[in-house]
Amino acid sequence: MNFDLVIVNAEVCTPSGRARQDIAVQDGKIAALALPGQLKGRKELDAAGKIVLPGVIHTHVHMREPGLTYKEDYESGTKAAAAGGVTMTMDMPNVQPPTTTVERYLAKKEIASKKCFVDFQHWPGPTDPKEVHNFGKLGGVPGIKEFMVRDPKAKYPHMPELAIPDHGVLFKLMKATAEEGLPMLIHGENPELMAAIAEPFLGTNTKEARFNAYNYGNWWFQTRDIGSMIAIMIARLAGVKLHVLHMGQGRYMHRYVKRAKEEGQPVTGELESTWLVERQTDPERRKWLELGNYRPECTYADELWEAVNDGTVDCMLLEHAPHHKKEVLAAEKNVWDAPGGLAAIQDMVPLLLTQVNKGKTTLERFTLLTAENPARLAGVYPRKGAIKVGSDADFSVVDMNAEKTIRHEEVISHVEFTPWHGYVAKGWPVYTIVRGEVVMDHGKVIGKMGHGQYVPASHNSR
Amino acid sequence: MNFDLVIVNAEVCTPSGRARQDIAVQDGKIAALALPGQLKGRKELDAAGKIVLPGVIHTHVHMREPGLTYKEDYESGTKAAAAGGVTMTMDMPNVQPPTTTVERYLAKKEIASKKCFVDFQHWPGPTDPKEVHNFGKLGGVPGIKEFMVRDPKAKYPHMPELAIPDHGVLFKLMKATAEEGLPMLIHGENPELMAAIAEPFLGTNTKEARFNAYNYGNWWFQTRDIGSMIAIMIARLAGVKLHVLHMGQGRYMHRYVKRAKEEGQPVTGELESTWLVERQTDPERRKWLELGNYRPECTYADELWEAVNDGTVDCMLLEHAPHHKKEVLAAEKNVWDAPGGLAAIQDMVPLLLTQVNKGKTTLERFTLLTAENPARLAGVYPRKGAIKVGSDADFSVVDMNAEKTIRHEEVISHVEFTPWHGYVAKGWPVYTIVRGEVVMDHGKVIGKMGHGQYVPASHNSR
Amino acid sequence: MNFDLVIVNAEVCTPSGRARQDIAVQDGKIAALALPGQLKGRKELDAAGKIVLPGVIHTHVHMREPGLTYKEDYESGTKAAAAGGVTMTMDMPNVQPPTTTVERYLAKKEIASKKCFVDFQHWPGPTDPKEVHNFGKLGGVPGIKEFMVRDPKAKYPHMPELAIPDHGVLFKLMKATAEEGLPMLIHGENPELMAAIAEPFLGTNTKEARFNAYNYGNWWFQTRDIGSMIAIMIARLAGVKLHVLHMGQGRYMHRYVKRAKEEGQPVTGELESTWLVERQTDPERRKWLELGNYRPECTYADELWEAVNDGTVDCMLLEHAPHHKKEVLAAEKNVWDAPGGLAAIQDMVPLLLTQVNKGKTTLERFTLLTAENPARLAGVYPRKGAIKVGSDADFSVVDMNAEKTIRHEEVISHVEFTPWHGYVAKGWPVYTIVRGEVVMDHGKVIGKMGHGQYVPASHNSR
Amino acid sequence: MNFDLVIVNAEVCTPSGRARQDIAVQDGKIAALALPGQLKGRKELDAAGKIVLPGVIHTHVHMREPGLTYKEDYESGTKAAAAGGVTMTMDMPNVQPPTTTVERYLAKKEIASKKCFVDFQHWPGPTDPKEVHNFGKLGGVPGIKEFMVRDPKAKYPHMPELAIPDHGVLFKLMKATAEEGLPMLIHGENPELMAAIAEPFLGTNTKEARFNAYNYGNWWFQTRDIGSMIAIMIARLAGVKLHVLHMGQGRYMHRYVKRAKEEGQPVTGELESTWLVERQTDPERRKWLELGNYRPECTYADELWEAVNDGTVDCMLLEHAPHHKKEVLAAEKNVWDAPGGLAAIQDMVPLLLTQVNKGKTTLERFTLLTAENPARLAGVYPRKGAIKVGSDADFSVVDMNAEKTIRHEEVISHVEFTPWHGYVAKGWPVYTIVRGEVVMDHGKVIGKMGHGQYVPASHNSR
Repeated sequence: MNFDLVIVNAEVCTPSGRARQDIAVQDGKIAALALPGQLKGRKELDAAGKIVLPGVIHTHVHMREPGLTYKEDYESGTKAAAAGGVTMTMDMPNVQPPTTTVERYLAKKEIASKKCFVDFQHWPGPTDPKEVHNFGKLGGVPGIKEFMVRDPKAKYPHMPELAIPDHGVLFKLMKATAEEGLPMLIHGENPELMAAIAEPFLGTNTKEARFNAYNYGNWWFQTRDIGSMIAIMIARLAGVKLHVLHMGQGRYMHRYVKRAKEEGQPVTGELESTWLVERQTDPERRKWLELGNYRPECTYADELWEAVNDGTVDCMLLEHAPHHKKEVLAAEKNVWDAPGGLAAIQDMVPLLLTQVNKGKTTLERFTLLTAENPARLAGVYPRKGAIKVGSDADFSVVDMNAEKTIRHEEVISHVEFTPWHGYVAKGWPVYTIVRGEVVMDHGKVIGKMGHGQYVPASHNSR
Repeated sequence: MNFDLVIVNAEVCTPSGRARQDIAVQDGKIAALALPGQLKGRKELDAAGKIVLPGVIHTHVHMREPGLTYKEDYESGTKAAAAGGVTMTMDMPNVQPPTTTVERYLAKKEIASKKCFVDFQHWPGPTDPKEVHNFGKLGGVPGIKEFMVRDPKAKYPHMPELAIPDHGVLFKLMKATAEEGLPMLIHGENPELMAAIAEPFLGTNTKEARFNAYNYGNWWFQTRDIGSMIAIMIARLAGVKLHVLHMGQGRYMHRYVKRAKEEGQPVTGELESTWLVERQTDPERRKWLELGNYRPECTYADELWEAVNDGTVDCMLLEHAPHHKKEVLAAEKNVWDAPGGLAAIQDMVPLLLTQVNKGKTTLERFTLLTAENPARLAGVYPRKGAIKVGSDADFSVVDMNAEKTIRHEEVISHVEFTPWHGYVAKGWPVYTIVRGEVVMDHGKVIGKMGHGQYVPASHNSR
Repeated sequence: MNFDLVIVNAEVCTPSGRARQDIAVQDGKIAALALPGQLKGRKELDAAGKIVLPGVIHTHVHMREPGLTYKEDYESGTKAAAAGGVTMTMDMPNVQPPTTTVERYLAKKEIASKKCFVDFQHWPGPTDPKEVHNFGKLGGVPGIKEFMVRDPKAKYPHMPELAIPDHGVLFKLMKATAEEGLPMLIHGENPELMAAIAEPFLGTNTKEARFNAYNYGNWWFQTRDIGSMIAIMIARLAGVKLHVLHMGQGRYMHRYVKRAKEEGQPVTGELESTWLVERQTDPERRKWLELGNYRPECTYADELWEAVNDGTVDCMLLEHAPHHKKEVLAAEKNVWDAPGGLAAIQDMVPLLLTQVNKGKTTLERFTLLTAENPARLAGVYPRKGAIKVGSDADFSVVDMNAEKTIRHEEVISHVEFTPWHGYVAKGWPVYTIVRGEVVMDHGKVIGKMGHGQYVPASHNSR
Repeated sequence: MNFDLVIVNAEVCTPSGRARQDIAVQDGKIAALALPGQLKGRKELDAAGKIVLPGVIHTHVHMREPGLTYKEDYESGTKAAAAGGVTMTMDMPNVQPPTTTVERYLAKKEIASKKCFVDFQHWPGPTDPKEVHNFGKLGGVPGIKEFMVRDPKAKYPHMPELAIPDHGVLFKLMKATAEEGLPMLIHGENPELMAAIAEPFLGTNTKEARFNAYNYGNWWFQTRDIGSMIAIMIARLAGVKLHVLHMGQGRYMHRYVKRAKEEGQPVTGELESTWLVERQTDPERRKWLELGNYRPECTYADELWEAVNDGTVDCMLLEHAPHHKKEVLAAEKNVWDAPGGLAAIQDMVPLLLTQVNKGKTTLERFTLLTAENPARLAGVYPRKGAIKVGSDADFSVVDMNAEKTIRHEEVISHVEFTPWHGYVAKGWPVYTIVRGEVVMDHGKVIGKMGHGQYVPASHNSR
């Protein structure tokens, strides 16, 4: 048979190991895997010297659309994803208006369907248990995201409609989510506790970016630990499968997740992996990290790597939380107005592959934590996240020997800067392939806007 | 020297063992301990065949005064204590008005000073960190009690003024308490979570006492587990020494306390020991227990005994939470109006000594958990809680072989019933001695109202 | 291309999930995997209604050759394997003479090459560290098996040459094994301790089969716990990757393995899974199990299933330790002479699939624990243990709905009986395929003796 | 009454706290404790400014008599004890001939009865279970000490008769010990393992003292860890109360003891506390420590202090294992002949009190770990180890503010040197009182040889 596309000379790497095999694509699916030389295609892509990975799925993206599109929109965000070797994005509900209802979810799907370069899904954030059931009835929804926040009297990051007034409501949301067979993603926090910890510092001289990173971050992290543990305990009571976000941003979160797993509770965890990248000493990079509320080093990074390698971490990513350069620089004047978070989707894969090259983890585990596990979490496995016959032909083809400097000038996102400017990464994506279409070739995005599709989730299949 | 009183022929039992020695009392203090026959007194008390224990201190009493004195008052409550072998009581702040300010605390002290048969202290429950500092300045205060409750829109059990609006305020209260060098006693709960769990049951047929014990109790217990764990985590952050109340009333609380201790956090725990008394099959006793919201059996009693014996439990007691018979019986008609809790101070010692006689724990450990540890917790050790030269001459003299039936007719408390009616206990207090005065002799209270004194606490001494 | 064989209409099940795909075999290898209908072969095997699993590898087989071939030999043993859906066997060194040297290992390889129906390897058991290095130099060896036994002054089961005189020698063997990059399989025991425990019973009336199962077994199990823990500790010191055998036969072994994994030590574990089959009440089956030293029930089977499902267990199997019916029945007369162990290779797959059908674990996990993990352990992955392009075309094709009674009459092994006689299993192998050849078709072995090949191991590949 | 002796103006410190009280002694017993000024004596000892502690009991002493008296004998050893504030010693059975039989135990008792300055007991080391029963029948024996050693073909430190051939014999010894109601003290080791670890180093240049401390010590420590864990496991099986010696000399022993306690096993532990004294930088002290096989620093000293304060450690001491200066210096020439161990009984109390003064632990805990717990372990509590009416009048009176330099010149032991020469300790014993007799006054031994008595143990009392 003459297939649409055959990838030849490939070394394929998946969680279960590496092999040399050719890959045939037909109608956007993997139609056949075969010993080299057996398959013929109308097109051929020669992957000699490269490694073909299952397409990277980024499950923690803020696309800022609708409502905050000066920071990012589906076009810029998914184009950056494609450039960065990411084949699918899943974005968060804290946009304006927030994605709290089926109606808004479908509206977002509608917008995204026209603007995306890579495939996509959305995590809705209903705060009414009835609406959780409506999402269940709708079908195709990957899970429910909840922020353990109170009404912050602010438009961003957690608009009033996302607030969960108390743990009773959280319990009801978890119960409804469990009844619909969906996982819950939790942003663990304890906002009143954080406010109380912060209070003594509010009147102090804070006109330094570092203040945010070192104090604001610290308060937040302490309450993340406690908030996440509360969520784990209530989830046990409610019987919901819980996905704990932001591990790493809290001294003990990974330990709590590990312990819950050891006790047999159905808990998974996402490692916010900024700290897996080594300590930054360059003043420019330190500045941007601090402006984005990140300390440029971590005293417990070794513990986090251990969590990566011992099964505690299910998903490894750098959160994509873009804010425009102007907003971020405002922190230099008034630290309290500055938003937290950084654009990371374009740089994430090379940053993490650099660590693989340093031997911190294996490429096999990288594919588990960036493709298979995210796909399972989102209920899109094995359509996504696998190099299997019948799966979507999504691949991140990487050159583990390529070295390149990350630069502000290459940034596709609206933010106009990258905190990793000047960093030399080793290990780069060279092709991003989404359902058989090469959407990125050696850093250049050649896909078409609108190629990206909505991927309905199903938690009935394994 | 001729002492005021000498107790002769005594076997003295303390946490560090048993010994035969005579005890001399002068001016209400232990003036000397000596080998038998060495001491002379103007009065002698022959303790042959009995065991002299350090006076039992009950740290979890609801005296209901002011405001709810039809349930109990200082006179009835401390008279019942004296009858039951208890030499000091410490009562809780959820009275009317609640003991949230120094002024109210001093007013309570004033009332109690005139009406008590045994020595006393009060746990204040300020909900404003400033008032915590005022208590610190006042001095003599044993610690701070907080209820993790919200405004219940009700007069009882947790009146609006005791409500803590959120975990941030709890953190501030803990921090202030730590700064004053005081311990915090925590009633762990998560009221919104409890309401959410209860909601589906609210419309069901609940006109049975058992409903309360089996469902209401269950919800409450689940939220106690979580509330207590939250308190432990916030206490670590705030640096306060935490005393976790109500262990036993929650499937896992004792495990959390054990783990916190293993991790080196300064946490102590009180075991609500109703379940240390064995399973009750008598219908009368089952009825009263159920009316009081207690299930007459426990599936994890063995685990609780293990916690008693392995150091997890610091204080062992049956909470004294009296409600009048009429109120309790109202639960037979409308279960939602019925208050939870039972009068236990008069029966506690014989109930627990019966278990000692059954070999569940040692008499030495009984004295540790009912005298030394409570005294240390409250900052009154070694004035109280010890049989040492210089300590107050407070003794619970017990006859471990005495057998007697507990009966409604003997109840001194205002409540007019005992849930243990008909139970044959083995091991009874025969003398209660408070600062050298015998206030109870073989069940009969012979002390004078007003003999009981306020005992100022000090957490500077060891 | 026209392949040698195409398996059509297959549902393929592997650790990462299930999929419908056709499988092409060329020259004994999986040449292609493709969407249904894409592949053509000179032969076709219709797997409609069946599930294709990666070929089951049995890593704990006693083939009894050379020296004890009246119990079993390569012909009978591997024919039974083929009948039972097993595509590769790995046998133990306690034969006569024992496989302690390269020379004997090669001699066994020579014999087996002519007599096997399925592929094979041998675990050598050198007791001299130099010989471990010789095995390393030889190459192809899967690992080193050690018995923590002393010279038993007996021919069986652990002949003098297998004895390890002390823990120092064990340490040296482990160190040598680590230096050769091989894993060590450990039969944990403490023979002197066992003898000491047994001593008081040796003079008692023991003329009952049950005695063995209930007492001998008990002593043994207690010393297995301790022996295995010792091995785990010495392995940490020696830096060797340890595979703990016989989990399940010891109250705590699985807990020790779990803890070692949690602490990051490279330890894997084999669950002897007789007790995963439910409690046997049938007198006939009880008798045979007891004669074979197995109690017909286990008080901690739930804990073992948990270990299967939580990642503690890496390999799940029923040890194949055949003894002839006459030897086994001798235990009815003199229990001390009776050998322990049962023939299980023919019944293992249906027995375990029955449990999968009961929902005790998933078929996916079954393939992980019977194919992928055993292959990784033995250094033959992904040639074996995977359904991947380039892997050997080894398949256990099963009918999960087939029900059949296990019967003495069907036994291929020399032993002439099965302890599971009369048991109705649900879930049976219907084809055993070894490198593209169907060697068993619906219970009938149609392969040729000698088809089975030696599979060289390599621990350099992943 | 006019007592033999009254200690006045004393601050008394015991595990349960401190108090000002006078102490009356009559016939060698504490006859009365009383408020200051109440007691009269024919003699008075003014303890103003000092602290009276329960007499320190050293449970791990090598008195070297009979057979090795050039190193130490009862006279020199107990005189050094008296000088060092120690009121009772318990010595080990590895003398010549070793104390393996009742006969030898009684012979030692006979010798010691004439030569001791302080009270004493002996730990016998029978290696035949029958002899354990003989010790049980004899009565008065404090427990059984076993060395997990094999026949070392040497006279010292573990002579052939002390060897335990295997774990089976150890099990039998433990079982017999449990049957006699005695505790077992275990010297955990794995001699074959140690030999195997050492082997590669045996041919290397070892003519340096440091070699022993850094390599020999290391091997030994690794096998102590494993040996102790094995002992804990076999003890669980045998049901014996186990006292683990030499915690600290092994990276993980304290963790194993902690875990066993958490699991409820009756295990206690002795901390060899050389490493509780801070890192030594002085070349002279480093030399002597290294010659004695001790490294002058420890990477996990903080962990050991934690074990002291969290209840893991029951007994805290510096092992007294004297070797003559000449023997020790021989290690400079041939490291393999040099014995391990140091004389410490004279310096132990000031060395540890210096740490108390530094705030590492409390004086209360010091008394628990050096007096009450050792006395309980040895079955001599409350006759010894307590300041209670009726107890022996044994006191270590200390001046916590005294500062003095430790010097070779002061050494009473036969060894003629102290490894702490030049170290300034703060906190010194000023009186040692044994059964009412002051045997040491401000460093000068004024007691009489032969005053020391054998103290029969009883494990029936609490």
